[in-house]
Amino acid sequence: MPSKYKVLLVGSGALGVVAAYTLEYNGFAEVTVVVRSGYKKASTEGYKIDSIQFGKIESWKPSRVVPNVEEAIANGEVYDYIFTSVKNLPDSPTPCEQILEPVLKANTKATVILCQNGLDIEKPFLEKFPGHVILSCVSLIGCTNIDCVVNQMTPDNVQIGVFENPTIKDKEEAERKLDEFISIYKMENGKNVVKKDVNPRLTRWQKLVYNAAINTSTALTDLDCSRAAMAGCKESIWRPIMREIYAIAKSDGYILPPDLEENMLRISDGLFYTPSMLVDVRLNRMVEVEVIVGNPLRIAQRNGVDAPHLSMTYHLLKMVQFRIMEKQKIITVDDSVREFKNPDAQDNVL
Amino acid sequence: MPSKYKVLLVGSGALGVVAAYTLEYNGFAEVTVVVRSGYKKASTEGYKIDSIQFGKIESWKPSRVVPNVEEAIANGEVYDYIFTSVKNLPDSPTPCEQILEPVLKANTKATVILCQNGLDIEKPFLEKFPGHVILSCVSLIGCTNIDCVVNQMTPDNVQIGVFENPTIKDKEEAERKLDEFISIYKMENGKNVVKKDVNPRLTRWQKLVYNAAINTSTALTDLDCSRAAMAGCKESIWRPIMREIYAIAKSDGYILPPDLEENMLRISDGLFYTPSMLVDVRLNRMVEVEVIVGNPLRIAQRNGVDAPHLSMTYHLLKMVQFRIMEKQKIITVDDSVREFKNPDAQDNVL
Repeated sequence: MPSKYKVLLVGSGALGVVAAYTLEYNGFAEVTVVVRSGYKKASTEGYKIDSIQFGKIESWKPSRVVPNVEEAIANGEVYDYIFTSVKNLPDSPTPCEQILEPVLKANTKATVILCQNGLDIEKPFLEKFPGHVILSCVSLIGCTNIDCVVNQMTPDNVQIGVFENPTIKDKEEAERKLDEFISIYKMENGKNVVKKDVNPRLTRWQKLVYNAAINTSTALTDLDCSRAAMAGCKESIWRPIMREIYAIAKSDGYILPPDLEENMLRISDGLFYTPSMLVDVRLNRMVEVEVIVGNPLRIAQRNGVDAPHLSMTYHLLKMVQFRIMEKQKIITVDDSVREFKNPDAQDNVL
Repeated sequence: MPSKYKVLLVGSGALGVVAAYTLEYNGFAEVTVVVRSGYKKASTEGYKIDSIQFGKIESWKPSRVVPNVEEAIANGEVYDYIFTSVKNLPDSPTPCEQILEPVLKANTKATVILCQNGLDIEKPFLEKFPGHVILSCVSLIGCTNIDCVVNQMTPDNVQIGVFENPTIKDKEEAERKLDEFISIYKMENGKNVVKKDVNPRLTRWQKLVYNAAINTSTALTDLDCSRAAMAGCKESIWRPIMREIYAIAKSDGYILPPDLEENMLRISDGLFYTPSMLVDVRLNRMVEVEVIVGNPLRIAQRNGVDAPHLSMTYHLLKMVQFRIMEKQKIITVDDSVREFKNPDAQDNVL
């Protein structure tokens, strides 16, 4: 065991900062945090944290803050763990595996922890970085990070497991890495919940029952969960999509618990909760449509499962993604040929 | 034949102003226009019109401008025709038939012209106002009305027919009214296109092929037609919805022409056209979801036609309608119990 494990943390949203703080607080890890936006403030003033788990911290800086992954390995640094909580956007100009490529090529023994939503998120890693252990981390936490001011409202609650990985011969080594990471992340006094996940794909299918129905429809309509329910979507949208997820999971070999559907339908009752995808839409950030909807839909198509509600959801969200990518100037459209000069005020009859 | 026909025009959008101008220009009608918003300007300064059909008109006032329907009949006025081009919103606090109720109760012989999108829009009129002839007017026109400045970019093009109406005994009388209205609306020199519609329900099913697929999906995603097509929705969204409309129309006894689907898919190619429903969403005005999607969907349910794409479209648009109605304070939601204070900045993981 090294004096301290070296962890590279990529994705400095609130969740990432809480994870970095937890790892250094426990004392077994030295964390380098990649901060792509807000680097200057994070590296000079550090973070102000108000946490249900740690109390109020006026100013905290991780062992090291770097502006990008390249800088994190500029001097041949070696990392035991690469923890990533960036949004998983395969359709963006810089998908997650591309961001991590330099460090994974340089650190062939590093274990990757993907703390992200969605299904089949490990697949690009298995392909591009064979031999790396890839861990699944499914998180439940309510927290915000606004300009280096972090608020954590609910305790950290994660399930961590080993992704199925045909590129690894030594399965026991993968299990050891899992146990090791859990041991350096879990707090002594039970202040965070860190569970070993023996079936990460099942866990991810279960979380998709919520995400594929509720994140998506609230993002498409700009309504929080409670307003969406008031507008009648539980029976007309959420339940039909959830049932399609059940059927697709089944075709993939995973039987989801029957009571999960009802629980997920009720979990946000009265909370006026804003799912992450709706937050992204409101902030004009790309949405995780491919890993939350696209990947399960492709499994449905492969396995011949009829999923028209999920298909509509996917393709409407791809249109929203197009709109966001144009606003972010990732896509450029020449509309100089448009017919009418003032289309927004048109009394159109079509 | 009276010296001049008396027409009450309700709905003073660009289309309504063009219709009123046309009727008075032709010289056979005296038009009273109900102007609910912008009454003061319309009744004093009148309209400035720039029209492909009539040229530039500095200032034009209809024979009479009134602020509401009640005022239009305050002195026992009798109207031969009630032409309405207000949005058809059965789910609003003041649906169309309620707006027209005073004048129709007072004018039991008046013929109603519904110049509006959607299917089954005549049904509330048949029920509430039996004995009135109800005409269908399906319009194609590109025009705007911004604060009494009217621009007409494409020629007026309407199809007018008689709605099937079991409350009327004298079918020939209805046909006479249709011919009469066409004769006072049609311009001599062919400057407007006014066609007699022998099968208005078929015409409306045909227009729905466009409206139910294209207005809806562009409204849900805030993308004009060309951007929507670039985002891939022609095959994934528009065609599946169009095929469901074909199937529902068939179950209703109407066989739509096979080439219509392809024509409607291509009709807006390259135009960056903003369909009326997207215009409404952008301006936070209620959308015509019930007459464009709800009514055909109810026929599908009644006739046992599977229409999951149309169903998703309908229920997502009902959520958008909820959002718009809350913004317009038609609906009030008490969200004081919301869990997090700053939901828009949350790094939510659900």
